[in-house]
Amino acid sequence: MTWLDLPADTGFGLTNLPYGIFSSGAADLPRTGVAIGDHVLDLAALTGDPVHATGSLNAFMAQGPESWAALRAQLTAWLTDPAHQERVTGHLLPRAGVTMRLPIEVADYVDFYSSQDHAENLGRMFRPGSPALTPNWKHLPIGYHGRAGTVQVSGTPVTRPHGQRKAPDDVAPTFGPSRRLDIEAEVGFVVGVPSALGTAVTVRDFPSYVFGVCLVNDWSARDLQAWEYVPLGPFLGKSFLTSVSPWVVPLAALATARVAAPARDVALLPYLEDAGEPWGLDLSLEVRLNGAVVSRPPFGRMYWTAAQQLAHMTVNGASLRTGDLFASGTVSGPEPDQRGSLIELSWNGAEPLKLPDGSTRSFLENGDQVTITAFAPAADGTRISFGEVTGRVVGK
Amino acid sequence: MTWLDLPADTGFGLTNLPYGIFSSGAADLPRTGVAIGDHVLDLAALTGDPVHATGSLNAFMAQGPESWAALRAQLTAWLTDPAHQERVTGHLLPRAGVTMRLPIEVADYVDFYSSQDHAENLGRMFRPGSPALTPNWKHLPIGYHGRAGTVQVSGTPVTRPHGQRKAPDDVAPTFGPSRRLDIEAEVGFVVGVPSALGTAVTVRDFPSYVFGVCLVNDWSARDLQAWEYVPLGPFLGKSFLTSVSPWVVPLAALATARVAAPARDVALLPYLEDAGEPWGLDLSLEVRLNGAVVSRPPFGRMYWTAAQQLAHMTVNGASLRTGDLFASGTVSGPEPDQRGSLIELSWNGAEPLKLPDGSTRSFLENGDQVTITAFAPAADGTRISFGEVTGRVVGK
Repeated sequence: MTWLDLPADTGFGLTNLPYGIFSSGAADLPRTGVAIGDHVLDLAALTGDPVHATGSLNAFMAQGPESWAALRAQLTAWLTDPAHQERVTGHLLPRAGVTMRLPIEVADYVDFYSSQDHAENLGRMFRPGSPALTPNWKHLPIGYHGRAGTVQVSGTPVTRPHGQRKAPDDVAPTFGPSRRLDIEAEVGFVVGVPSALGTAVTVRDFPSYVFGVCLVNDWSARDLQAWEYVPLGPFLGKSFLTSVSPWVVPLAALATARVAAPARDVALLPYLEDAGEPWGLDLSLEVRLNGAVVSRPPFGRMYWTAAQQLAHMTVNGASLRTGDLFASGTVSGPEPDQRGSLIELSWNGAEPLKLPDGSTRSFLENGDQVTITAFAPAADGTRISFGEVTGRVVGK
Repeated sequence: MTWLDLPADTGFGLTNLPYGIFSSGAADLPRTGVAIGDHVLDLAALTGDPVHATGSLNAFMAQGPESWAALRAQLTAWLTDPAHQERVTGHLLPRAGVTMRLPIEVADYVDFYSSQDHAENLGRMFRPGSPALTPNWKHLPIGYHGRAGTVQVSGTPVTRPHGQRKAPDDVAPTFGPSRRLDIEAEVGFVVGVPSALGTAVTVRDFPSYVFGVCLVNDWSARDLQAWEYVPLGPFLGKSFLTSVSPWVVPLAALATARVAAPARDVALLPYLEDAGEPWGLDLSLEVRLNGAVVSRPPFGRMYWTAAQQLAHMTVNGASLRTGDLFASGTVSGPEPDQRGSLIELSWNGAEPLKLPDGSTRSFLENGDQVTITAFAPAADGTRISFGEVTGRVVGK
């Protein structure tokens, strides 16, 4: 039990202790904090350790699992032993009063495509009459590199991108603002420990490299994407912005959330086997559009786990760097109200969403705000919150 | 005229002055140097400016075009005015005795696909009976993000990647070392000045952002790539290694090399128009396999210029960072001996290359060494060398 007076069902109790980068005033240097209840604990000030004053989590993440575990144990002691109460209290700031920054310096950003429901939905919409999944889908976690430089913290305005769009009936592409601006509700994994070039990281070694988990909104311009993506994949349809939640939940907080991935109906090559090392995670996501819940995607059903994604990403010898971010791909469940993108929720515009204010949406309009939240179960029956990733669309 | 005694046709005369990062001994810190003749000028020691002692060109590149021009003028003065000879000579080291490092901290790495000959060759091989170019090819420079963390300096061993391969007749993929390891001879462009999120960079502004040019070998595992790349593009088939030459030739050295891009037979959208701002570059590449020249790709024929690639890459509002690297895509000409990849040179294995030692190659064997060089014309009738990017294949 903490000596702190935590709000009921806070989501930021002792079982969570996520890390982020905050500043508390204009002249203030960004530094590392830990969310606890409605407060942020100023780790830079409390510990005096310069690793927490760098303005990103990277230096701490690079220290590896023993340091992560040691600090987590220390935090628990500080927040439970009344002997520390006076000193620690002096470094607690109301979370409502601080500004959250991008928590990591993103090295490489990879986006996967690991929800079978999502992949089948898109396959049905775009390749009617063909199998919903491409032949490789159940043999490997399909992924691609995204733009690391446009990964931004939650709250960053979503400037509607311009680009080339060409409808099937158009004779030539036209240029202008995207008319099919969409979201993708995803879960992101942050690499702490680098690996050597030429060496694969195994499924089993996942927790030796991955520091924690955040939420990702992979904003997507479907019209730009559709015209550009054959044959080399998505580019400008994605690269204008990817938003991440400010709090990185340590892997250590998610032991209770671990679940097995869905049963396989296609045999896996040995390097992707996760027998005895299930890294599925029972996270419950919610997507709100202008305040109304429009979807509740279940993360536990993802066909490929983050440990399998990591093993695949490095099996060719590609090295990892501290700050690498890899995202799950859109999280969709089997039910219509569990789909993690508007293109699925509105079935490519055929069934527009009805919002409580009476308006409808197939894609995002200027002024729209999208917020994604998630919870994981904790050992003591409470819930672990991932905070939120939010953004409002700005016309241009 | 320089007071230095330069080798005949050095390629590293006063018209070039490329920048790189070198170290001269095991205990030595990597620092910025300029290649001149067979020497490297130690800029860190000569100038005492800490910007040249950071171990990458990024800090200097971020200073922008005025600083770049000022230092280039200063270098020219130092190397021509005999009054500086004694002081400067003390900071010249034989290039043969230094170790070259990765010249830039790579932010994002983008690879384009801008040679029409290359795109048509691949289209003919892989989509016989269909048009050689996809419908979007002449409307926009197709590109995708690669893995920035595995961009390495010339000389880095090429560890043969493992991964999933599936021939059309196989019932399921198998796992093992790539059997179709290939090269892609490319030219890379390095961004110096960052741009703001939400703002496009125009074709005209290209020299305000781009610092210089290097050579790139985008090593490719064709079997991994073929199985994985639908629908999200190349991933593990490319991400194991991308090699770059150690010397970055400043854009200012390439004024004489500028040529117009080939005539367009499809009208361009205004943001891609380069009327009056031709940034085609008349570079002559050579590809050597185990010492034998196997190709001479002509860069001047590229359909899309680097200025058009930059305008396209940012037209959706994506921001640039110092150290962004974007590569041209494989440079191929119309003649069989102008193709920039083995898959084209051997026509997908149907016409293996004959090497002088009597052996043949469709793809790379362990122990093979590939070296790419390039020259540009200079104003005084001499040639500007890009040095080389080389790598030897190591089995595993």
